[in-house]
Amino acid sequence: MTPGHQGRGGWAVAGEGNGTDQVRIARAALSRLFEPLDPVGVLLVAAFGPEEALRIASGRAPAADLAALGTALEDAAGPDPGRASGPRAAAARPGALAGALERWAPRVQHLAPERDLEATARLGGRLVIPEDAEWPAGLLGLGAEGPLCLWVRGDEPLPAAERSVAVVGSRDATGYGISVAGELARGVADLGLTVVSGGAYGIDGQAHRAALSSSAAGVPTVAVMAGGVDRYYPTGNEELLREVARRGHLVSELPPGASPSKHRFLKRNRLIAAMSALTVVVEARWRSGALSTARRAVDLGRHVAAVPGSVYSANSAGCHRLIRDGAACVTDAKEAYELVAPSGEGLAEDPSAPARAHDGLSLVDLMVLEALPVRRGAAVESLAVVAGLSEAEIRAGLGRLSLVGLCERSEGGWRRSRQA
Amino acid sequence: MTPGHQGRGGWAVAGEGNGTDQVRIARAALSRLFEPLDPVGVLLVAAFGPEEALRIASGRAPAADLAALGTALEDAAGPDPGRASGPRAAAARPGALAGALERWAPRVQHLAPERDLEATARLGGRLVIPEDAEWPAGLLGLGAEGPLCLWVRGDEPLPAAERSVAVVGSRDATGYGISVAGELARGVADLGLTVVSGGAYGIDGQAHRAALSSSAAGVPTVAVMAGGVDRYYPTGNEELLREVARRGHLVSELPPGASPSKHRFLKRNRLIAAMSALTVVVEARWRSGALSTARRAVDLGRHVAAVPGSVYSANSAGCHRLIRDGAACVTDAKEAYELVAPSGEGLAEDPSAPARAHDGLSLVDLMVLEALPVRRGAAVESLAVVAGLSEAEIRAGLGRLSLVGLCERSEGGWRRSRQA
Repeated sequence: MTPGHQGRGGWAVAGEGNGTDQVRIARAALSRLFEPLDPVGVLLVAAFGPEEALRIASGRAPAADLAALGTALEDAAGPDPGRASGPRAAAARPGALAGALERWAPRVQHLAPERDLEATARLGGRLVIPEDAEWPAGLLGLGAEGPLCLWVRGDEPLPAAERSVAVVGSRDATGYGISVAGELARGVADLGLTVVSGGAYGIDGQAHRAALSSSAAGVPTVAVMAGGVDRYYPTGNEELLREVARRGHLVSELPPGASPSKHRFLKRNRLIAAMSALTVVVEARWRSGALSTARRAVDLGRHVAAVPGSVYSANSAGCHRLIRDGAACVTDAKEAYELVAPSGEGLAEDPSAPARAHDGLSLVDLMVLEALPVRRGAAVESLAVVAGLSEAEIRAGLGRLSLVGLCERSEGGWRRSRQA
Repeated sequence: MTPGHQGRGGWAVAGEGNGTDQVRIARAALSRLFEPLDPVGVLLVAAFGPEEALRIASGRAPAADLAALGTALEDAAGPDPGRASGPRAAAARPGALAGALERWAPRVQHLAPERDLEATARLGGRLVIPEDAEWPAGLLGLGAEGPLCLWVRGDEPLPAAERSVAVVGSRDATGYGISVAGELARGVADLGLTVVSGGAYGIDGQAHRAALSSSAAGVPTVAVMAGGVDRYYPTGNEELLREVARRGHLVSELPPGASPSKHRFLKRNRLIAAMSALTVVVEARWRSGALSTARRAVDLGRHVAAVPGSVYSANSAGCHRLIRDGAACVTDAKEAYELVAPSGEGLAEDPSAPARAHDGLSLVDLMVLEALPVRRGAAVESLAVVAGLSEAEIRAGLGRLSLVGLCERSEGGWRRSRQA
């Protein structure tokens, strides 16, 4: 990568290579040094940039500077951090930096960002950083909680959030959930959108699998991993994840070799939400990681939807909870698409579903339709009596219904057309 | 009833009996003369009151007066009816009254309101009219579209809409729908509320049946019929409807002997909606009469809810459509109750559902809970690292969680309590 890198145990220092390479290497190193959303690490990068943050975090700032740095961090956390809460306030507490340095110290000697970059390149991967044009704009919604970088396998540029739909859910999915996830993801991919998920067993895996079965152009699917993109986790999905890497993207904020852990999964969920315009939860128990993804999507102002199911299925309880809390109720890919489609961009009517011709009818037109006989036609007057509407309303309604092919004139008057 | 009634083929005339009796008899007669929501009839009663409306509608107004009456009706329909639409405008059109008189004429000779009242009394029933204190306030929401009167079987006063929940749905219900309808209606009745439905096969019948199985005090259930309350329709529900009449109410705006017809069913749905604070649709196809009840409830500003189900069930498609259009997603009686309960009137926590202790948790508390180990306790510092929260937030969260029994202190720090 850069001519001056120090090989195993070292990293490139400022002044060598070009600026972007240095930033890339610094971010690669930081992604190994910091756990995702390390509160002090987040603040350090925000305040000093990745290169300087790496110098400080790896213990190369003189001890005498640390007190001043701590003060600078307090300033960076904003006015009156003592009264604020959250990670920023925690990071600004006196002693937070010293504690963090102690936490990071054991990892410093293992930093070898060029080696990580090379290992990833050998897998056909690369590191994408916020300074790159390819950086997904959707991630900017995370603000300071955005990832330091993304380790990416897959050739295409990362897809835009506006063209991506997250399909997530329980690992211990039911046959129902698996079936819906498959049809939904396949339908979304067939519409040329990207299916984002977490690579897990159950709903996630089925979503990736179904998206890969689509022959539509574009990136069918992205798996956002909680460990390194060289790790196939869970192992039973290795073949699937290899295929995702080949035809879609494997993505992680963690460096090669990193193993997934519970808190990495939880942090990972914010990336799934941020990389998608819509998060659809197919099945989720009352407490479920998929709900945390949905909550992050809400926080980001993205669309959230859930698939309904039996009230007796514990695997749908979390979905119904989401719907109760305001998530959209989505039963197929078309309904999902309608949530993310730019206004005016409609879908072709599905000719296999003529019953849906009734969907757009006003109450009055529906009353007219319901008053229409199937066989022998009825006069406007008699329709008015049956429907309880005025004759003028009946006539106007018949005009609209005949325009959409739902009624026709016959001997004796008006009746439903066969397709109605 | 009144001393001066004329027996078969006649009716009491003004000046005989007391005013309320005369009004009652006039409304009884009009309920046989007019179809529900007859547009001219509605306007006639609104403009002249029931007794004068009966005189006019039964052809006892001199022909010379009819032109003047027509003009009066146009005035009653409000300013500029020519530009308005709807039944009022239709009724105000020139010639509408003449047409209506022609429509009503064949029925005039069969009017015998006292006989109808006596027949109903023999069945243990009575006529309730808007002038009675018992008239359900919920029906006032219908305005001019309210029923002329209600033929009622059942001893108790008619229940208030605020204490009533409509449970409706498909006649061709699935086993799933039948099961949910039963549990929902039984749960609603157990809470002391009245279950309102339409007496049909499928969801309606099951809702009545389950409500009757409750031992709670009050009126368990009301069946709003599309024909006379002396008719048991559908015939297969005769035994059930007899029991509803005995322990709840059979109610109809149509006089004894009236047979149900399609448009009477559609009109009847507005009464179900108006007599209930909440309408819950348990199962409904994409086009279903239950949806018309839900639409009427929306028009009335009442709560509307639907029960979710499989996306593959045609019988749930209408429910999902309702939820998509803004209906609440309800999975059990408790959730239904929460929609209608006056604020502050809470339900006792269900001790059989400890998992629901998580329901009210904030995102931060949920993050703390998810960071807590199950077995060996963890220190606040390590919880902060795992959860990505400040130690102050962790401590505050642990305080709240321990208050609700979800975490506990053990050797080594904090862990989840067994019930969490």
